[in-house]
Amino acid sequence: MKIIDCHAHMAVPHQLPAYKASILSHRGAHGRKAPPVSNEALEQAFNRVEMAPMGHLACLDQAGVDIQLLSPRPFQLMHSEEPKKLVHWYVEYANDIIAQECALYPERFYGVAGLPQTGDSPITEALPELERCVKEFGFRGCLINPDPFENNGRMAPPMGDRYWYPLYEKLCELDVVGHIHSASSRAPEREPYSLHFINEETTAVYGLCKSTVLEDFPALKILVSHGGGAIPYQLGRFDATTVPRNGMSTSGVRFRDRLQKLYFDTVLYSRDAIELLVKVVGASQCLYGAEMPGVGSSIDPETGETFDTIIPHINGLSFISDDERKAILGGNAARLFNIEA
Amino acid sequence: MKIIDCHAHMAVPHQLPAYKASILSHRGAHGRKAPPVSNEALEQAFNRVEMAPMGHLACLDQAGVDIQLLSPRPFQLMHSEEPKKLVHWYVEYANDIIAQECALYPERFYGVAGLPQTGDSPITEALPELERCVKEFGFRGCLINPDPFENNGRMAPPMGDRYWYPLYEKLCELDVVGHIHSASSRAPEREPYSLHFINEETTAVYGLCKSTVLEDFPALKILVSHGGGAIPYQLGRFDATTVPRNGMSTSGVRFRDRLQKLYFDTVLYSRDAIELLVKVVGASQCLYGAEMPGVGSSIDPETGETFDTIIPHINGLSFISDDERKAILGGNAARLFNIEA
Amino acid sequence: MKIIDCHAHMAVPHQLPAYKASILSHRGAHGRKAPPVSNEALEQAFNRVEMAPMGHLACLDQAGVDIQLLSPRPFQLMHSEEPKKLVHWYVEYANDIIAQECALYPERFYGVAGLPQTGDSPITEALPELERCVKEFGFRGCLINPDPFENNGRMAPPMGDRYWYPLYEKLCELDVVGHIHSASSRAPEREPYSLHFINEETTAVYGLCKSTVLEDFPALKILVSHGGGAIPYQLGRFDATTVPRNGMSTSGVRFRDRLQKLYFDTVLYSRDAIELLVKVVGASQCLYGAEMPGVGSSIDPETGETFDTIIPHINGLSFISDDERKAILGGNAARLFNIEA
Amino acid sequence: MKIIDCHAHMAVPHQLPAYKASILSHRGAHGRKAPPVSNEALEQAFNRVEMAPMGHLACLDQAGVDIQLLSPRPFQLMHSEEPKKLVHWYVEYANDIIAQECALYPERFYGVAGLPQTGDSPITEALPELERCVKEFGFRGCLINPDPFENNGRMAPPMGDRYWYPLYEKLCELDVVGHIHSASSRAPEREPYSLHFINEETTAVYGLCKSTVLEDFPALKILVSHGGGAIPYQLGRFDATTVPRNGMSTSGVRFRDRLQKLYFDTVLYSRDAIELLVKVVGASQCLYGAEMPGVGSSIDPETGETFDTIIPHINGLSFISDDERKAILGGNAARLFNIEA
Amino acid sequence: MKIIDCHAHMAVPHQLPAYKASILSHRGAHGRKAPPVSNEALEQAFNRVEMAPMGHLACLDQAGVDIQLLSPRPFQLMHSEEPKKLVHWYVEYANDIIAQECALYPERFYGVAGLPQTGDSPITEALPELERCVKEFGFRGCLINPDPFENNGRMAPPMGDRYWYPLYEKLCELDVVGHIHSASSRAPEREPYSLHFINEETTAVYGLCKSTVLEDFPALKILVSHGGGAIPYQLGRFDATTVPRNGMSTSGVRFRDRLQKLYFDTVLYSRDAIELLVKVVGASQCLYGAEMPGVGSSIDPETGETFDTIIPHINGLSFISDDERKAILGGNAARLFNIEA
Amino acid sequence: MKIIDCHAHMAVPHQLPAYKASILSHRGAHGRKAPPVSNEALEQAFNRVEMAPMGHLACLDQAGVDIQLLSPRPFQLMHSEEPKKLVHWYVEYANDIIAQECALYPERFYGVAGLPQTGDSPITEALPELERCVKEFGFRGCLINPDPFENNGRMAPPMGDRYWYPLYEKLCELDVVGHIHSASSRAPEREPYSLHFINEETTAVYGLCKSTVLEDFPALKILVSHGGGAIPYQLGRFDATTVPRNGMSTSGVRFRDRLQKLYFDTVLYSRDAIELLVKVVGASQCLYGAEMPGVGSSIDPETGETFDTIIPHINGLSFISDDERKAILGGNAARLFNIEA
Repeated sequence: MKIIDCHAHMAVPHQLPAYKASILSHRGAHGRKAPPVSNEALEQAFNRVEMAPMGHLACLDQAGVDIQLLSPRPFQLMHSEEPKKLVHWYVEYANDIIAQECALYPERFYGVAGLPQTGDSPITEALPELERCVKEFGFRGCLINPDPFENNGRMAPPMGDRYWYPLYEKLCELDVVGHIHSASSRAPEREPYSLHFINEETTAVYGLCKSTVLEDFPALKILVSHGGGAIPYQLGRFDATTVPRNGMSTSGVRFRDRLQKLYFDTVLYSRDAIELLVKVVGASQCLYGAEMPGVGSSIDPETGETFDTIIPHINGLSFISDDERKAILGGNAARLFNIEA
Repeated sequence: MKIIDCHAHMAVPHQLPAYKASILSHRGAHGRKAPPVSNEALEQAFNRVEMAPMGHLACLDQAGVDIQLLSPRPFQLMHSEEPKKLVHWYVEYANDIIAQECALYPERFYGVAGLPQTGDSPITEALPELERCVKEFGFRGCLINPDPFENNGRMAPPMGDRYWYPLYEKLCELDVVGHIHSASSRAPEREPYSLHFINEETTAVYGLCKSTVLEDFPALKILVSHGGGAIPYQLGRFDATTVPRNGMSTSGVRFRDRLQKLYFDTVLYSRDAIELLVKVVGASQCLYGAEMPGVGSSIDPETGETFDTIIPHINGLSFISDDERKAILGGNAARLFNIEA
Repeated sequence: MKIIDCHAHMAVPHQLPAYKASILSHRGAHGRKAPPVSNEALEQAFNRVEMAPMGHLACLDQAGVDIQLLSPRPFQLMHSEEPKKLVHWYVEYANDIIAQECALYPERFYGVAGLPQTGDSPITEALPELERCVKEFGFRGCLINPDPFENNGRMAPPMGDRYWYPLYEKLCELDVVGHIHSASSRAPEREPYSLHFINEETTAVYGLCKSTVLEDFPALKILVSHGGGAIPYQLGRFDATTVPRNGMSTSGVRFRDRLQKLYFDTVLYSRDAIELLVKVVGASQCLYGAEMPGVGSSIDPETGETFDTIIPHINGLSFISDDERKAILGGNAARLFNIEA
Repeated sequence: MKIIDCHAHMAVPHQLPAYKASILSHRGAHGRKAPPVSNEALEQAFNRVEMAPMGHLACLDQAGVDIQLLSPRPFQLMHSEEPKKLVHWYVEYANDIIAQECALYPERFYGVAGLPQTGDSPITEALPELERCVKEFGFRGCLINPDPFENNGRMAPPMGDRYWYPLYEKLCELDVVGHIHSASSRAPEREPYSLHFINEETTAVYGLCKSTVLEDFPALKILVSHGGGAIPYQLGRFDATTVPRNGMSTSGVRFRDRLQKLYFDTVLYSRDAIELLVKVVGASQCLYGAEMPGVGSSIDPETGETFDTIIPHINGLSFISDDERKAILGGNAARLFNIEA
Repeated sequence: MKIIDCHAHMAVPHQLPAYKASILSHRGAHGRKAPPVSNEALEQAFNRVEMAPMGHLACLDQAGVDIQLLSPRPFQLMHSEEPKKLVHWYVEYANDIIAQECALYPERFYGVAGLPQTGDSPITEALPELERCVKEFGFRGCLINPDPFENNGRMAPPMGDRYWYPLYEKLCELDVVGHIHSASSRAPEREPYSLHFINEETTAVYGLCKSTVLEDFPALKILVSHGGGAIPYQLGRFDATTVPRNGMSTSGVRFRDRLQKLYFDTVLYSRDAIELLVKVVGASQCLYGAEMPGVGSSIDPETGETFDTIIPHINGLSFISDDERKAILGGNAARLFNIEA
Repeated sequence: MKIIDCHAHMAVPHQLPAYKASILSHRGAHGRKAPPVSNEALEQAFNRVEMAPMGHLACLDQAGVDIQLLSPRPFQLMHSEEPKKLVHWYVEYANDIIAQECALYPERFYGVAGLPQTGDSPITEALPELERCVKEFGFRGCLINPDPFENNGRMAPPMGDRYWYPLYEKLCELDVVGHIHSASSRAPEREPYSLHFINEETTAVYGLCKSTVLEDFPALKILVSHGGGAIPYQLGRFDATTVPRNGMSTSGVRFRDRLQKLYFDTVLYSRDAIELLVKVVGASQCLYGAEMPGVGSSIDPETGETFDTIIPHINGLSFISDDERKAILGGNAARLFNIEA
């Protein structure tokens, strides 16, 4: 059995941030031309020591991860920038580099596309790039940003709104995974991007579980980042409003039943949280994820291990079977992402 | 030992919503005059069967709750309405009624004030009402709404900002509890008030734990609603950024250490969640709360009990001592709220 | 001959403001469900002493009014609230209660519907409710709010604009009366709702008399509240611009000729004003109205009568015939509202 | 006894609109320089046949008016234009020309200043010009625009607000009259300036009669244009809210009592309206005004007289004494404006 | 050979600014009626001494100009005023007067229409007036304002945008000249209209030379005011980006090549500048223009000549042939404007 | 004599754009820490072939430039980004790197600071960084961006406004040069940054020459980029408004006289333009500048030279003396920037 980290981000060669800085400086006046990246540059990026005590590849080796799903760093996607073509240019360049990385390490990495979502545009404008990545590069899914306004005070439609249906339809048609993950935050003092991720996941899961999306798209595969924000922990609160009260029946589907149709990664960085997640949503809905290297790559002074050392937590769950453990560590991901593992 | 529900809301006599509807209709043109409420009307309100299978008092009796802290229903506080005097009028009327309720059942209820917070005003404009409630009525704390804009797209300063310091100072001076709880939401499709509560608690705890508020006000007593939003579940994520990384030391205090100085109620409606909360923040920081009757007063079809049947969950925690159990059920609250219990 | 008060508002049972307060608190999150109102509650409301020295029914008896047209209290219609569905919910509930009131006192009351008008919506969105009230409940007219923005700084199209034509068409088709009456005011310090009524009536009459609406809809029956705002008093000013000046002919219809096609109620609270009104627009265009109980139900210290004691004023008009007097007191209303009286 | 028309506007030489057009074109880039106007040009202006069947002076002669108070044409004052210096330039030029007109016909004309009011500025910025006109030119009053935003959706403070107190103070100090008259309207389709005059007068009188201005400034002399908008006609409505209701005493002064401290001109163009005005506010508060030549200078086809033929209406009032008649026609104005007549 | 001044503005009779002031005061409430202008008034206007040391006609005679193209004074066109119908009314009146002027001096003047451009409208709304002027009056071109927002902070599409194509098409169809010239500026402190002209010309030429307009409309005749703003002086800068760099070919047409398809007037007021212009764009693209009388009609203390004494500068150019000189002075204009000269 | 290029920009090591991309992604959440840059990285940057046919140092050698003034690339300064601390962080990092570059090549490079200007802040907030760069690093001047809003529709005060006086004062106090140069443009389709440079220079020179800045600060040294935008070419236009007209004297200083107190670089890329510049402003006010490598580093197909081959143009000026030539090529810069050359 192969261990699959379902939530990880690309190694970033120098050209990508330089490109971002450049187009944000000229705002499109120099055109979209992006410099080619050599495989050497990519290898260098995969071995650069930056966020973690060792390079990207070394992290995987040490943790025993066989396969990773790679997507763009979400907080760099700048979905709220203007003019909107800059968003398209940047994300296409990032996806191109991910495709090159997957080609360079074909056994190890599979692509998850960033989408060129922008605040006031119909979601259909992001679909050609999804299609390009899946059909040309063989990507297995895409990030979905529930807040392309990037917390600027305006608000996107909730995830149950018809606004999103063309995307859900396309995901089903292509049979790929939609991975919920917001981007940056324009209110960094109050709610920096890392916190905004959590709030947006909470809001996204709520929106999906209070709507009929999951009934309307039975084949839809939605993976929620970071263990689903607050929802598994707060389930009782939302579940309580979908059972009958004082004899009044409630027409809708129970919140918990919908919740258990979504998938969640284990990017939670503590055993207690992972335990709660698996108990609440079930082993069949959990996918090992460590987002490695990343925010969890610092060393917990108490354990001497990085926070993103998550496999031992999964191995330590006493209340699941071995098959369930394997499913969490790789089986579920293999099935969802169509990876032969 | 007395069991204390630290998070509950007033029984609402007909006059209060009628008053709200009235001032929102005339927008202040008829002046502020509010009708007196008789004790009979209050008794009726405490026995009305509405959200729960039985009346307010009966809920307490059945659950075995001895004492409750009563505050206004937060989602009715309309902090974002204009002109701002309407906010003051309403909250003062609500606090008056709570005071009358506490006087009617002096053993059973203690008051927690609503504050007349409004979006663009300095927090000092809300402090006279806090002082009035504590000094005239003997209230033991107040609600703090981290988002007086009520999710209208504008954003209040984060909880670590100097904006809030006069309130923290006043809370220390009066030796009463600040209870974090947001109000309504102007974006009900995407993020209805009940969900907004959770996101605002997440944001508020983050703001407190990333700032020096708790060092600047060592005596400050902050109680966070609903088990702290997402934070106890997501602790690893935020903790990981406050330990040294790659040899670079970090100047700040560790996130977890600050988190463990805040207090949390157990309004979580599931045993798993309460277990996680107590493990993460410690028994000394947890206060039994059930917000009864309230959102959790519907009956879980599986157990036949209401979701807000929380005392058994606390009794069932295997990893805490009996003293810790008592502390959670009442001792911590008695100490914090200065209740002789 | 029956005396008909053409301008009066429903008796308000406790449930209606409570419902308003509730939906404004949860902003739709709890759904639209409105509690049923018992006939006993309505009877109680019709006998409650509140604005007037006696209850609603007693006022009518004392004044000698046989029949009243009942509409929602306009200043409570909250046309400018968001989300717009709240406006629909509230007005439909209010209309339902009026229908129940008319059914309870079938000889005495006839319904006039509130409309779910909202600022940025086409007027067609308000028409299904009008149709429901007329066809299902037998209502005889509806309120028309010329300012659904409720004085928030944005402005609705003038009453002569094509925007309103679908409403005019529907009124003609259903053969019911459109009763001009604005709602609340978002600028209560400068222009509280009661003053805004007057200014909006002035503006509405102007808009109708400067456009071709009355030629385009010869069968249209428009009743203007409170004696037409300022217009009958200021007629000379506006009339003077529609006669030839310095030999230049003027193409339009004379202002006064159009004015005399509209209908006006006598809710003016002084004999001088009523006298002027009847002189200016003619007895055939005046309908007795007292809006009882209401703003005029306080007692004039000089006369010892309530200001809304209007019938004696009409009886005292020396310059009209007895037939004209009867027409004002009831005949005109019976004809307009299709009431057999 | 001399007949005094208290409400009239300057004769406009070609230079004034040309100057307005010019500064609105260059927006201040050419500086403020305004061309001198010759006395011949003024004479020409006073004899030009434009709005009325004859020239300005001829109108006065024919009507038998001895003296007129001249102010700028209000709808041309452009208080809402930017940059604000343009407003100052224009109004100062207009006042200069009025001063020249008064000097040219010293027995016939007395000046009433326009003020350079602008939307967001303190009223103190308009006072130097008032002082200049009174002290240098001997003007007897000024126009007060209650809406310097000119109906653009933003709203000035109500007339009872402290915002206006420096102006009231200055009027008392200089012992001159404040003449309420709004300017243009930025919403001409819905509410053209001529209609806006009426609504703003209604609102202004309301604001004065609901506040303590008249008690705070007992010497204040306020003259309201066009017979006070809607208020005298609608008095009952507002008066009814300032008498005790259901035993509850009311603290304020009665609306009617305050109303009768204000002064009103008779620019109403119909006998019925003038009759109502005099009845409601009393002869001591009424000043003959015809705004001649002006909006009322067209010929009523029924009478063959211009609408502004108002003296016969006053002469025809049967319920006043001869002294009262003289007071209305000139005595009140002479006293208010300190004119020896 | 006749000397043709291709850039000049109408003589302005008093009625035109008075009309502007009037409609800006009543905002359309009085309707559009504009007073007729007599030929005497026009003659007076052509002989009035205002900006120049002598009258309009005398200026031409003294300078030796045979023919002038007359358009409205651009800074008076008020394209950004509301309601938009005022813009239409004003420009149509101005065009009417120009037509009358051309009829009065048929050998001397040819008309160039102002267009009723307004900020948010499609350019098609301005085309009927263009057509009217060309077909009814025989005008030879029109002004094009690249910034109908008049520098109010919002921005029109660049001149290469499809927004403008219907205008280009119509110009080709009618075979008339489009003369780039902006109107007033709403930011007069920072960028008064006269400076805004220059910046807008710079921006307009840039927009045309960086787009395919000139390829898409080979017959299009665009005349740029004031020697093209900054572009001829700054040509190197923009040209340098349209030649290949470091071996990368560039797909577009060279900036300079497009520049040399546009036409430029010589309204530059200095010999050095005119010399640079002719050198950079070629004699075939230059049209004598002096905008006389106008901004350049003051006397240079050094030369004793007015700044707009431009013909000697053209005569003094040593590097062009006599034929080229004649082309600049009149031949090019005759060809472009279809004038038999 | 040393040849000094007074207008050039830093060599950019990879870390700088990466830093920009990073802080724009996390919006400050990761703090300001910027990576150190090695001297090797700087050397690499100075030898990288990018915009020009050869590296930065090679360009200088080939052209014969001895000394360059280095400032940050203006279009990358992102003055309009939020939160404002990002602007400070970026510019300080850029200045640090320039200081390191000057230290690395002490004979060749002198620093010109970027300023952390931001739209709504007083200019005083940018002065500490100016002081730091001059006092700690020995910089000789700073860039001044007349439009820190970066063309987003809002407008900074004109250069003659008191807003800028603290900066002018500080420049005099430190005896360093203010170099006018705007940054990026938020309207890239209509006016990309490179064009915006020109328009802002035009506007800035206008603002300086129409105000009393140059009289108020006689010691102020202002250098205008790119030959002063449009102004030298358009001088007649602006000069003509500052001489007496029709006998009316003009109070101000003549435009041309002020213009000739400013300094201008020769970054114009064509001999004709440079010739015009020197003629108009005089050799004493011109400083050789080529901004090399930069926008002019592409090869003109006609000459086979890069457009920024400017020294031959200066050498080719026939109408200046040799001393003047030397002054332009280096002497003026040496004096202004206090460089011993």
